Amino acid sequence: MTDDTSPHRSRRHRQSRRTPPGAPPGTLIADPAAQRPKITVIAYGEDALEEHAIAEPEELKNIAGRHAVTWIDVEGLGDVDTLNRLGEIFGIHRLALEDVINVYQRPKVEEYDDHLFVVTRMAQLDGMLDTEQITLFLAANTVITFQEKPGDCFEPVRARLRQKRGQIRTRRADYLAYALLDAVTDAYFPILEKYGERIEDIEARVIAKPDTNLIADIHGIKRDLLTLRRAVWPQREMINALARDTTPFIGEQTRIYLRDCYDHSVQLMDMVETYREIATGLTDIHLSSINTRLNEIMKVLTIIATIFIPLTFITGLYGMNFQTDKSPFNMPELSWYWGYPYALSLMAAVAGMLLIYFIRKGWIGGSRKRKRNRRHTDRPQK
Amino acid sequence: MTDDTSPHRSRRHRQSRRTPPGAPPGTLIADPAAQRPKITVIAYGEDALEEHAIAEPEELKNIAGRHAVTWIDVEGLGDVDTLNRLGEIFGIHRLALEDVINVYQRPKVEEYDDHLFVVTRMAQLDGMLDTEQITLFLAANTVITFQEKPGDCFEPVRARLRQKRGQIRTRRADYLAYALLDAVTDAYFPILEKYGERIEDIEARVIAKPDTNLIADIHGIKRDLLTLRRAVWPQREMINALARDTTPFIGEQTRIYLRDCYDHSVQLMDMVETYREIATGLTDIHLSSINTRLNEIMKVLTIIATIFIPLTFITGLYGMNFQTDKSPFNMPELSWYWGYPYALSLMAAVAGMLLIYFIRKGWIGGSRKRKRNRRHTDRPQK
Amino acid sequence: MTDDTSPHRSRRHRQSRRTPPGAPPGTLIADPAAQRPKITVIAYGEDALEEHAIAEPEELKNIAGRHAVTWIDVEGLGDVDTLNRLGEIFGIHRLALEDVINVYQRPKVEEYDDHLFVVTRMAQLDGMLDTEQITLFLAANTVITFQEKPGDCFEPVRARLRQKRGQIRTRRADYLAYALLDAVTDAYFPILEKYGERIEDIEARVIAKPDTNLIADIHGIKRDLLTLRRAVWPQREMINALARDTTPFIGEQTRIYLRDCYDHSVQLMDMVETYREIATGLTDIHLSSINTRLNEIMKVLTIIATIFIPLTFITGLYGMNFQTDKSPFNMPELSWYWGYPYALSLMAAVAGMLLIYFIRKGWIGGSRKRKRNRRHTDRPQK
Amino acid sequence: MTDDTSPHRSRRHRQSRRTPPGAPPGTLIADPAAQRPKITVIAYGEDALEEHAIAEPEELKNIAGRHAVTWIDVEGLGDVDTLNRLGEIFGIHRLALEDVINVYQRPKVEEYDDHLFVVTRMAQLDGMLDTEQITLFLAANTVITFQEKPGDCFEPVRARLRQKRGQIRTRRADYLAYALLDAVTDAYFPILEKYGERIEDIEARVIAKPDTNLIADIHGIKRDLLTLRRAVWPQREMINALARDTTPFIGEQTRIYLRDCYDHSVQLMDMVETYREIATGLTDIHLSSINTRLNEIMKVLTIIATIFIPLTFITGLYGMNFQTDKSPFNMPELSWYWGYPYALSLMAAVAGMLLIYFIRKGWIGGSRKRKRNRRHTDRPQK
Amino acid sequence: MTDDTSPHRSRRHRQSRRTPPGAPPGTLIADPAAQRPKITVIAYGEDALEEHAIAEPEELKNIAGRHAVTWIDVEGLGDVDTLNRLGEIFGIHRLALEDVINVYQRPKVEEYDDHLFVVTRMAQLDGMLDTEQITLFLAANTVITFQEKPGDCFEPVRARLRQKRGQIRTRRADYLAYALLDAVTDAYFPILEKYGERIEDIEARVIAKPDTNLIADIHGIKRDLLTLRRAVWPQREMINALARDTTPFIGEQTRIYLRDCYDHSVQLMDMVETYREIATGLTDIHLSSINTRLNEIMKVLTIIATIFIPLTFITGLYGMNFQTDKSPFNMPELSWYWGYPYALSLMAAVAGMLLIYFIRKGWIGGSRKRKRNRRHTDRPQK
Repeated sequence: MTDDTSPHRSRRHRQSRRTPPGAPPGTLIADPAAQRPKITVIAYGEDALEEHAIAEPEELKNIAGRHAVTWIDVEGLGDVDTLNRLGEIFGIHRLALEDVINVYQRPKVEEYDDHLFVVTRMAQLDGMLDTEQITLFLAANTVITFQEKPGDCFEPVRARLRQKRGQIRTRRADYLAYALLDAVTDAYFPILEKYGERIEDIEARVIAKPDTNLIADIHGIKRDLLTLRRAVWPQREMINALARDTTPFIGEQTRIYLRDCYDHSVQLMDMVETYREIATGLTDIHLSSINTRLNEIMKVLTIIATIFIPLTFITGLYGMNFQTDKSPFNMPELSWYWGYPYALSLMAAVAGMLLIYFIRKGWIGGSRKRKRNRRHTDRPQK
Repeated sequence: MTDDTSPHRSRRHRQSRRTPPGAPPGTLIADPAAQRPKITVIAYGEDALEEHAIAEPEELKNIAGRHAVTWIDVEGLGDVDTLNRLGEIFGIHRLALEDVINVYQRPKVEEYDDHLFVVTRMAQLDGMLDTEQITLFLAANTVITFQEKPGDCFEPVRARLRQKRGQIRTRRADYLAYALLDAVTDAYFPILEKYGERIEDIEARVIAKPDTNLIADIHGIKRDLLTLRRAVWPQREMINALARDTTPFIGEQTRIYLRDCYDHSVQLMDMVETYREIATGLTDIHLSSINTRLNEIMKVLTIIATIFIPLTFITGLYGMNFQTDKSPFNMPELSWYWGYPYALSLMAAVAGMLLIYFIRKGWIGGSRKRKRNRRHTDRPQK
Repeated sequence: MTDDTSPHRSRRHRQSRRTPPGAPPGTLIADPAAQRPKITVIAYGEDALEEHAIAEPEELKNIAGRHAVTWIDVEGLGDVDTLNRLGEIFGIHRLALEDVINVYQRPKVEEYDDHLFVVTRMAQLDGMLDTEQITLFLAANTVITFQEKPGDCFEPVRARLRQKRGQIRTRRADYLAYALLDAVTDAYFPILEKYGERIEDIEARVIAKPDTNLIADIHGIKRDLLTLRRAVWPQREMINALARDTTPFIGEQTRIYLRDCYDHSVQLMDMVETYREIATGLTDIHLSSINTRLNEIMKVLTIIATIFIPLTFITGLYGMNFQTDKSPFNMPELSWYWGYPYALSLMAAVAGMLLIYFIRKGWIGGSRKRKRNRRHTDRPQK
Repeated sequence: MTDDTSPHRSRRHRQSRRTPPGAPPGTLIADPAAQRPKITVIAYGEDALEEHAIAEPEELKNIAGRHAVTWIDVEGLGDVDTLNRLGEIFGIHRLALEDVINVYQRPKVEEYDDHLFVVTRMAQLDGMLDTEQITLFLAANTVITFQEKPGDCFEPVRARLRQKRGQIRTRRADYLAYALLDAVTDAYFPILEKYGERIEDIEARVIAKPDTNLIADIHGIKRDLLTLRRAVWPQREMINALARDTTPFIGEQTRIYLRDCYDHSVQLMDMVETYREIATGLTDIHLSSINTRLNEIMKVLTIIATIFIPLTFITGLYGMNFQTDKSPFNMPELSWYWGYPYALSLMAAVAGMLLIYFIRKGWIGGSRKRKRNRRHTDRPQK
Repeated sequence: MTDDTSPHRSRRHRQSRRTPPGAPPGTLIADPAAQRPKITVIAYGEDALEEHAIAEPEELKNIAGRHAVTWIDVEGLGDVDTLNRLGEIFGIHRLALEDVINVYQRPKVEEYDDHLFVVTRMAQLDGMLDTEQITLFLAANTVITFQEKPGDCFEPVRARLRQKRGQIRTRRADYLAYALLDAVTDAYFPILEKYGERIEDIEARVIAKPDTNLIADIHGIKRDLLTLRRAVWPQREMINALARDTTPFIGEQTRIYLRDCYDHSVQLMDMVETYREIATGLTDIHLSSINTRLNEIMKVLTIIATIFIPLTFITGLYGMNFQTDKSPFNMPELSWYWGYPYALSLMAAVAGMLLIYFIRKGWIGGSRKRKRNRRHTDRPQK
């Protein structure tokens, strides 16, 4: 477990709120470890699209309004000043900005006077599960997204914008917001499928070779599913709120698509809950398997011990001092020329056979190393 | 477990969504392994019925409208083009078509302008449990059903149509839709009865012979019941929505029948939940049985060991070097002509008796093979 | 468990729906094993009461209307024709008739144009728990009850009618329906009390003698409580619906009595849930008890083995070849006249004492037979 | 457990309903074991208070009306006639009277035309937990309470009435009813605190000395908490109904006090649920502790056995027949004068040391008796 | 566990209600162990702030009204008289005062005519978890807070008031109440993070070294999380009620902040529930780990015993009396000069090697002391 502690520790540190208890609401304190913001703008209409990397938030004033829809994507939350200036330009409430920086919000939607504020969580699985908070502001013709760090699941949406695929270029900002949320939601499917595979893997191993690593693996999967559940459950509520509430920021046509997206999030919940139940069942199988193994070991011990104990008693009883002179049948071995070496060889042979039997049973030997290797290989590669 | 991995793996692959995350909504990507569509039409009124296999969707335009009700049944989803053309002819929304192809939807009902869209799941049990998605479009006088593959539980409905049994020929399209959903719902009953039998089977065996295969069987049943629950639970909601909502596509008289169908789905839920609780209880019995067996084994070991250990100590204590010359009672065996063979035979007899005892107890021997056989035979044959 | 399989199997067969999936709704297929219907009529008013056994349903037309209230009781559902004719005479919907024959309905109430249709379940406990479906039609001045087989809990109601006890003769048909449902509900109390006794019995035994039969008994009780729960829970809802809904078939005064009946069904639920929780707790105690016993056995083994193992080593170390000629203290036993018999007797004495100890502990002996007997006697006699 | 069976049995018998299934509603059958009613009246206004023991219910007619409020307290339900006469005098519905006698009602409130009918349960803990049904009728200026047996938690209320403490003498009958219900509710607190203490006691012992008695104690506590939960949960609903519903029998000012009483009942529920969760956790600890102990025992056995087994083998291998004449180092002990006694003493010393070690470990000895004593003493004395 | 009993006992005593059952409502009985009240007043407006320690409640009359907002903070509840006088000055209902003194209320909000009454719980973690009741009265321009003892999480709020940070000085009393509740809510985050760390700590240890102390630690964490849940769950409801209800005491603008505070409390619940699930999973791992260890021990015992038992039998069989004169290979050791010392040394070497092996395995030795130390050090220092 030693090599696992470092990611755990890092996860733990990230979990802490940046704002200390008792601070004034709306206090922005950036995580010193967070990356500096990188701002990208994609402004587009049905006929044109322009894409810029922006250094200063003020440059946005020129771009906004030139096209039907403007999408401002901020990657990295390490600079409070930039966020403040963005907030001022777009009239973002300080409580919303605080939520942008405190990256452990539950997915939710809040309506402000001139924009919707949406918190969602994007899951990533490379080696270990990680969820990243994505906050999204939807105004009349602008979408602003804040990400914790570079790298996201929005690339296909950007490609659709650039290549004018589907209807995305002909629709308004609400459709872009839907497309982004849909991309976030659907990105959970391949991750959950991976967990499905892992569970099937463990199902196969738990009967064959129940060891402590396995219970640690099951626990790890249950923990990750708990993390996914904490993200997916409020996600579902959030998308439902978007699809049902009559907010002016989302058009009727986009609502149909959001309902489709809602269906997907319900499916996700379903998968998470099913996997959780199966994983819980695996714990029982594991305990049963261990106990069955113990039974098996005890049986071997009992059989061999209870057969030889009375026999040894009999040898003790007679002291095996049969008088060799009374009969040729009485312990002729004792007078053999190779008698002692023969007895030693007999013992070596018996011991050897038993050792081979135990090694075959997997009770002796480098099993631990092999298991550790197997465990590492079935972890997904980065 | 090795022979079980292949079906698991196939099930896992099928579980993945065909549409990649971030793709435009309504993207249709057929599963390359899916079968090519086979279209059958049954058009009927009170007096006449005609039945055709159709090659091109366009042929449907001629048939629709000739009779009171037209039922178009599409088996196989392997060709996006055919689905697209069907969708165009009947004005099906692209999101609905996407759901037709992504065959892991939960049962649900959605109302569009000119048709109801219903997703349901048909369960099949040959060897292993499988659920197949069935999508159904109900328009004013047309019912379209999409199935993943040939083979369904609709044959009795077709027979009722052809033989004019019951009132089905005199009723409208909504009644046909009800009859199909009712057939899907009622088809769960024989499957659940099979699981009831399996559970009773395991109940009998778990006390008599608790082994690891059994816990794997219990886990398998719990997993299958979880699958059934995921299908039946939203099925119940879906039928309830059909029976209660005031959609124009379903007449008042048909609603009475749908309420009956709803009662059946509630009964199904009841059975699933009851079986799940019993299966969970079996895990406890299994663990108790294993521990009881361990107790029994330990008892035998303890009894034999603790009886012979002091005896062997006594033999050791005196070294059994009783001086044979001091008394005729002192170890006369040592001077017997057959003394050593007698001692050897005594040992062989004791060892043999113990071996027979252990074999009778089922601790030694080909028990594993026998169990494996039994397990295979109590699986239902294809 | 072998002698238990036959009732299980029969129960399983009865569980299957008579109507095959896909059959037209309202299809009546009688269970070939069901008994032929036996129809009894009690017609009464405040002043008069007549009671008849009826051969043909048509005879009912003469009797109905002669008195204020007519109660038609049909015992046995083995003849579809009779049910059909009854259905026609009283205008019963075919879906309701189908429910009468498919005897695994959940308790429910349905309102039709000219009658209420009520499904309830009557529990019986002779040897093993059994629930029988009772269906009840309540029209303006007629009550029809269908029972699976003769024998019911309505005898006290019949006695009240005949002997004019209470107010039953002065009230209308709705009060008779209430009286019957109340009798069905109250009949659960003595059955649940029996389960309370059984649980207390097991509570006492689980600490003293935890064996595998006991866990099977606990499982059986949990299974039966599950069956009772499946019957009582919807029963409660059904009675609540009758007491609260404003159906014209039930008068305001009778509603007060139904509310009392509802209170009883809530009490039943309470008892069922409490017993279920206690039974679940018993499984934990059972496992703990088994493990405690294992501990005890291991302790005895450990104590005796670890005491004698070093001693035997010492005897082995010196080979006990103390030279008898060097000292009168050196193994004088070897030179005794009765030395060898003395040693043998010593061993026999030790072995005997240990055997007696183990028999007293209950580790050896006919304990299994005794337990089986006990188990049979604490089952209620038929 | 043998000495526990008698209270269990008595509890079981009391659990049965007095009214047989199928009897006319409102049938009153007194428990033959119940005590004869003892009627006490306290009539009071702001200025005066009189208190009488009454022999015949008819005497009440004279007292009622003389003062602002009349409280009639009936202890003992063993005489149907007295109850009937009371019911007639105060116009009590027969179904309510039936509930008074069937003392296993859940707490509830029912409104009749001229009185409120309240059922509550008073908990008592002397040695074992017992709950007693208290029924309360609240009319315009009269409160009637029925208790199963003498002895209650109303003494402080009587003292407040007599000593004119608080505002109770200046308020109406509804305030008296509140004061009584509040006394019943608050009487649960000291009982639950006792269970809190017992749980802490077990928490301390479960790690130190996990034995079977302990799991029986945990089970007993869980059972009692279940009983408390069954009483407290509907109590909470009942008080909530009194505080929220707009019944004319309860004034607005008294409602504020009932809301306070409701808060207390919520706190009770909270405590019960918390204790239940802790007790459930204790079962897990218990099992873990037992298994840890088993581990420890096995370790000792394994260490001693595996050290001495190879040594004994070596002694056996050489037969320890080293030729004493070849070297002075070869087994000089055999030729010692005190050789044999020395060996015997060595064995006795080893055996003695091991015995002392096992007794210190608590594996041998009168531990059972000590535990039983401890268990008895930590039960509260009557 | 012995050193843990004292804090438990003290916690238990504090848990008891001060008001005895049956006492008149509004009875104030101070805990004799409670601290005497210390009253501090901070009165402030946008421009000025004054801060006083007050000896007599009557001094408050002069201060109140001088500035826009007055915050009276009472630390210690040990003097009924002071509380009474405060109650009279500010018109506090006696039931509310009773709740102030009975410090085991659940968080709740109650509206009185001229003030809101809020109960909340402040968590503190120094060594062991403790929750302190804080009651808050919010009138038009006054906030009164009652604390059980000195020391709170309000210091940052006081600093904001003094230093005029944020908008707190420009807002009304409702904003101060919000700021205090927000400080209480946010103070749970660092505590929960601590529990997250502890759980991760145990996760690492439970696989490596499962011992009984660990299960006690897990139980302790579960218990504390239960305590936190009991505080946080109603806290969430209370804040939600404040944010949603249309009470005149809270302005529209402050509601936005309360909604933010509500989000935090939902996040807290989420963390508590997640940790509870993980902790429950740890119990399973613990049991599995113990059983795996037992398996390992049994394997070593079985291997060594079953190898040597047959060998010892063979040595016994031949008595190892090979005749040394028949062959130079026959037991030459017996005639060696150093034969006996050689055998003794061989045994000592084997025993030594096994002892080293067991010590390395951690089966022998001062492990207990080491574990106890480790446990103490990972407890947080006061």
